[in-house]
Amino acid sequence: KYVCVLLKMAKNTNIRISLPAVCFVWQIAMIILFGVFIRYDEESDTHWIEHRRKKNISTNLENDFYYRYPSFQDVHVMIFVGFGFLMTFLKRYSFGGVGFNFLIAAFGIQWALLMQGWFHHLDEHDWKIKIGVENLINADFCVASCLIAYGACLGKVSPVQLMVLTLFGVTLFAVEEYIILELLHAKDAGGSMVIHTFGAYYGLTISWVLYRPLLSQSKHLQGSVYHSDVFAMIGTLFLWMYWPSFNSAIADHGDGQHRAVINTYLALASSVLTTFAISSISQNNGKLDMVHIQNATLAGGVAMGTASEFMITPYGSLIVGFCSGIVSTFGYLFLTPFMEKTLKIQDTCGIHNLHAMPGVIGGIVGAITAASASESVYGQEGLINTFDFKDAVANRTVNIQGGYQAAALFVAIAFGLVGGALVGGILKLPIWGDPADVNCFDDDVYWEVIVFFFFLNELHGTE
Amino acid sequence: KYVCVLLKMAKNTNIRISLPAVCFVWQIAMIILFGVFIRYDEESDTHWIEHRRKKNISTNLENDFYYRYPSFQDVHVMIFVGFGFLMTFLKRYSFGGVGFNFLIAAFGIQWALLMQGWFHHLDEHDWKIKIGVENLINADFCVASCLIAYGACLGKVSPVQLMVLTLFGVTLFAVEEYIILELLHAKDAGGSMVIHTFGAYYGLTISWVLYRPLLSQSKHLQGSVYHSDVFAMIGTLFLWMYWPSFNSAIADHGDGQHRAVINTYLALASSVLTTFAISSISQNNGKLDMVHIQNATLAGGVAMGTASEFMITPYGSLIVGFCSGIVSTFGYLFLTPFMEKTLKIQDTCGIHNLHAMPGVIGGIVGAITAASASESVYGQEGLINTFDFKDAVANRTVNIQGGYQAAALFVAIAFGLVGGALVGGILKLPIWGDPADVNCFDDDVYWEVIVFFFFLNELHGTE
Amino acid sequence: KYVCVLLKMAKNTNIRISLPAVCFVWQIAMIILFGVFIRYDEESDTHWIEHRRKKNISTNLENDFYYRYPSFQDVHVMIFVGFGFLMTFLKRYSFGGVGFNFLIAAFGIQWALLMQGWFHHLDEHDWKIKIGVENLINADFCVASCLIAYGACLGKVSPVQLMVLTLFGVTLFAVEEYIILELLHAKDAGGSMVIHTFGAYYGLTISWVLYRPLLSQSKHLQGSVYHSDVFAMIGTLFLWMYWPSFNSAIADHGDGQHRAVINTYLALASSVLTTFAISSISQNNGKLDMVHIQNATLAGGVAMGTASEFMITPYGSLIVGFCSGIVSTFGYLFLTPFMEKTLKIQDTCGIHNLHAMPGVIGGIVGAITAASASESVYGQEGLINTFDFKDAVANRTVNIQGGYQAAALFVAIAFGLVGGALVGGILKLPIWGDPADVNCFDDDVYWEVIVFFFFLNELHGTE
Repeated sequence: KYVCVLLKMAKNTNIRISLPAVCFVWQIAMIILFGVFIRYDEESDTHWIEHRRKKNISTNLENDFYYRYPSFQDVHVMIFVGFGFLMTFLKRYSFGGVGFNFLIAAFGIQWALLMQGWFHHLDEHDWKIKIGVENLINADFCVASCLIAYGACLGKVSPVQLMVLTLFGVTLFAVEEYIILELLHAKDAGGSMVIHTFGAYYGLTISWVLYRPLLSQSKHLQGSVYHSDVFAMIGTLFLWMYWPSFNSAIADHGDGQHRAVINTYLALASSVLTTFAISSISQNNGKLDMVHIQNATLAGGVAMGTASEFMITPYGSLIVGFCSGIVSTFGYLFLTPFMEKTLKIQDTCGIHNLHAMPGVIGGIVGAITAASASESVYGQEGLINTFDFKDAVANRTVNIQGGYQAAALFVAIAFGLVGGALVGGILKLPIWGDPADVNCFDDDVYWEVIVFFFFLNELHGTE
Repeated sequence: KYVCVLLKMAKNTNIRISLPAVCFVWQIAMIILFGVFIRYDEESDTHWIEHRRKKNISTNLENDFYYRYPSFQDVHVMIFVGFGFLMTFLKRYSFGGVGFNFLIAAFGIQWALLMQGWFHHLDEHDWKIKIGVENLINADFCVASCLIAYGACLGKVSPVQLMVLTLFGVTLFAVEEYIILELLHAKDAGGSMVIHTFGAYYGLTISWVLYRPLLSQSKHLQGSVYHSDVFAMIGTLFLWMYWPSFNSAIADHGDGQHRAVINTYLALASSVLTTFAISSISQNNGKLDMVHIQNATLAGGVAMGTASEFMITPYGSLIVGFCSGIVSTFGYLFLTPFMEKTLKIQDTCGIHNLHAMPGVIGGIVGAITAASASESVYGQEGLINTFDFKDAVANRTVNIQGGYQAAALFVAIAFGLVGGALVGGILKLPIWGDPADVNCFDDDVYWEVIVFFFFLNELHGTE
Repeated sequence: KYVCVLLKMAKNTNIRISLPAVCFVWQIAMIILFGVFIRYDEESDTHWIEHRRKKNISTNLENDFYYRYPSFQDVHVMIFVGFGFLMTFLKRYSFGGVGFNFLIAAFGIQWALLMQGWFHHLDEHDWKIKIGVENLINADFCVASCLIAYGACLGKVSPVQLMVLTLFGVTLFAVEEYIILELLHAKDAGGSMVIHTFGAYYGLTISWVLYRPLLSQSKHLQGSVYHSDVFAMIGTLFLWMYWPSFNSAIADHGDGQHRAVINTYLALASSVLTTFAISSISQNNGKLDMVHIQNATLAGGVAMGTASEFMITPYGSLIVGFCSGIVSTFGYLFLTPFMEKTLKIQDTCGIHNLHAMPGVIGGIVGAITAASASESVYGQEGLINTFDFKDAVANRTVNIQGGYQAAALFVAIAFGLVGGALVGGILKLPIWGDPADVNCFDDDVYWEVIVFFFFLNELHGTE
């Protein structure tokens, strides 16, 4: 224990100056930037009543609020309870998992409103960003990519590093999203590419740059205990249940949202069965592993992100979930250990299995589904509506659309890799108060925890 | 401990072949059957825009999605978090409670879409089932009956047995539902009869067939610990809060859904008070029992399932909740021990008290309320709308409707008893990998759990 | 331990007669009063179809149900899971926290429907109260004030006392709300004044009257353990995520609800950052305190209650959250210990920091924002709609409105203080079965808990 205490001294993890400074300065910056740039849009402004009359809108229900608010709340739950509790699985890092997730998401949504606003919603007349419920959903989406990246670094970084990770992550996301959705005119309603692929490669590259050769010193804290696994199931289930809302939240009104829900619901159900199957078959005695159930069951939702709006058919959705559940579980069995040993990538939550691979699958499925769309299946108007073949891209064919979808996937991967390398370099500076290898995965570093309890815990190997 | 290990060998619980085989084969069968039968309906298809124009629907909001989606998500939470966490109360079976609930629900909803589709929604022109959000809700409802049945068997069966239980449970449900709703033309919006009564008797009969005379060998694991009781309260509260959505999810648009919510809200509130009262009065020192609070508080929602759409009046709803809370708590106090000793029915979660008795109460209340409906209360149009006195049953009177409601209750009970006996017989075959009596209620049989922790736990009698 | 057992005998906490009596008598009274007074309103009655035709309402969606139901369910979750789990943080009072919250909320919503009905919705023709979904939301709101008051008394009162606290709390609330909303015509959509300020001062005054000089005898149970803190985070997050629904649930259809959501979302995000900052800066080593994260992060939602509907602007919302997060965290650091020592107010959950101070801030912000409203910002119609300058108050100016808002704040405080003193006096009677000082914060007094586990727990200082 004395050695332990000594090693704890090895690195300065006191964030008493840096964390408050970052929080205050950035929050004040947000207030100033919001003051300059952000206003209510016409549907959330008191002039809505005049706007309604002018546009001849018969009822308040046509306010986008009533189309999108239930989905928004579901997405909001996924961001804070879903991602937060999924990361409570470690025996002694539950505070950090749910708490830092809370902190960076609360910061990220503000910064995302600005960044996404500048790129997508800047009013050219008065240079203001007009926000409504759809902007709130997009801000939550944007933050999701940073929370995914957090999953790779869980337990190994300080909250100050996470704030930096989020600042740059949101910035990169907004640019990448602009390129993919506006310039390439690719479709990605549930963000297989924009959110999951980008976020996962961003996090994995950061984790690669921050490689800790002596991480095994905190091996005893890297597992779960019985109740922390049950807490993590809260996260899993809220993500799983609300994923149909995630993939449909910003889909087209009407059939678009409706279809995205059905496709995602089916893909998720399918990946549960294949996850249980592979998890059981991989052990000598057929016993199930909670890590697989907590994570790989969600792969169907990730993989359905791009194609959720398309006419992929119900059985197509089942096939996507079938494959992604298998791929994801195999990832936890073989790829994660391989990556740690050979590629020097330490991926605490296994985001490569849950977000990177299913995200890439989702991008590919989206490209193929788009390329094989036809008027006979979609109807003439349906095809135009679904792919927004209007204005500048009025003459685009589905084959070309498929090509752009594929290009979008590469943009997402490239942004993740390059952005992660840059931000990883910044986070390697010895000023951020990150923990020593022996203190990783330990809430005691950044949280007031009763220490007696902590030692007892180690002694027993229990909680 | 050696004895313990020896006894564990007594039965082969290795499911390394059987569970993956069942998951893969059934999931592939689902994909094929979905490919042959399941298509988007006109509200989730890209042709919606043409459909809208043809039917002169003025706004996208008239898509059923916007009427039903919030209720669907609430029901979805009840199925996976509600039922799942309610079954985490055992000190050492939380993984099995929430995990197997997840597995069988994910399989069941797929099979339910097919079974219910064949019976209710088969398009006679192209022999396809067209699905939309209402089908998703109905699939969740159907699965609920199997999860109720799981409650009686919790801790005593293997996941393979649960998959079989679900396969047959969904099949029986679809037939029973067809008879009750289509042939008898009974009303049962919240499924007091169709879901709860059927599911409970189905599970109880299976548990009776699978009676384990030496179950007391695992008595030490049959209780809860402090934190597992708090986990179970998550399940209780999400069921309790969202039950108004459950009973109104497929009720008539407009006043039907509105009234079902009010009635269920009130019945639930009322049963909380009587549950606390009976729980306290039943102990010498007036102390409350968490088992009662976790379960009997929900009885009002079950008992309001059939009559929720009717003009039962707000105080009528309070009375229903009042009585069902009392009946359910007394069930836990006296009936469950009696059933175990005398009738040889081992009912882990007490589903007889939470689902069977309140479900029967709900069926009776529904029959009485229907029989006493009148034009003076409902209005002429209201009466026709509420009971769908159209087409083949245009001339049915409320008294006859009451008779059919009562008949429906018997159909539900009969299907539960006969179906449970048949399926119980199948599950008694010695091929399913169920645990020995001494290993019941123990996650260690089917899950990777750190064994050291487990023994320590037993030693201390704590978690 | 013998001493301990002896001291437990010192006070009679047997509630075997009193609790069931209160539950039964009051529930029967509810049934009778509901029978006399409560009916469905025109939107939840089967005559809705005729009403629609008469009023020329084109679609079922115009039923208020579809405007308000998603918000209602979110509020419902806040009341039962949010408040309930927030109060599970104590190491040995989780059952009491979530269980008694459940009991008094279930009673309170019934009594609130009556009390609020008599004051606000009594039909002058037939002396009936006609209820719909908005009444359910208001009943949940009303109960929230009593749950806040419970927070100050957590662990120190018997369930019978809580029932009395709720009975009078709801009664006082209905009168206070009538004065503020109807007589003063103040606006308070999210209840900064009506709910939070009143509820907090009501609870604090009760706690002051019930001051326990020897409470330190149960000091060893006043803290949290690792997992109880994680449970409390469930409460925190569901409150945090759904607070936009809370503040918008009864706001005006259309832009009113939309704007309330945006403002609340931003204020909450802002207060998370300042809470983390102050929590870290207040410790020598910069470590974060879970108590702050669990509570002060919510202050932004409380403080945005009154002005959420107003055109406070997005950056205005950020400023409100910024300040209230700071004030609330400082409250936990300095005010709570000061109040306990000097003012003899024992505030278990720190409701003074989370509800009283942010509530007062909210009232002041509301008054200032109202007084500075202008036609140039709101538009002529917008101003009238937002402040309801119609009928009796058609000629009110915004300055006068600001004055009335300030007056409303004083009414809320006065009702809290005077009501709390009166009810505190009643609760001081030695007939309610409250625990001895040494037995406070201990579930063992009112719940069946395995005692062996309990002693072991104390021995280890762990859960």
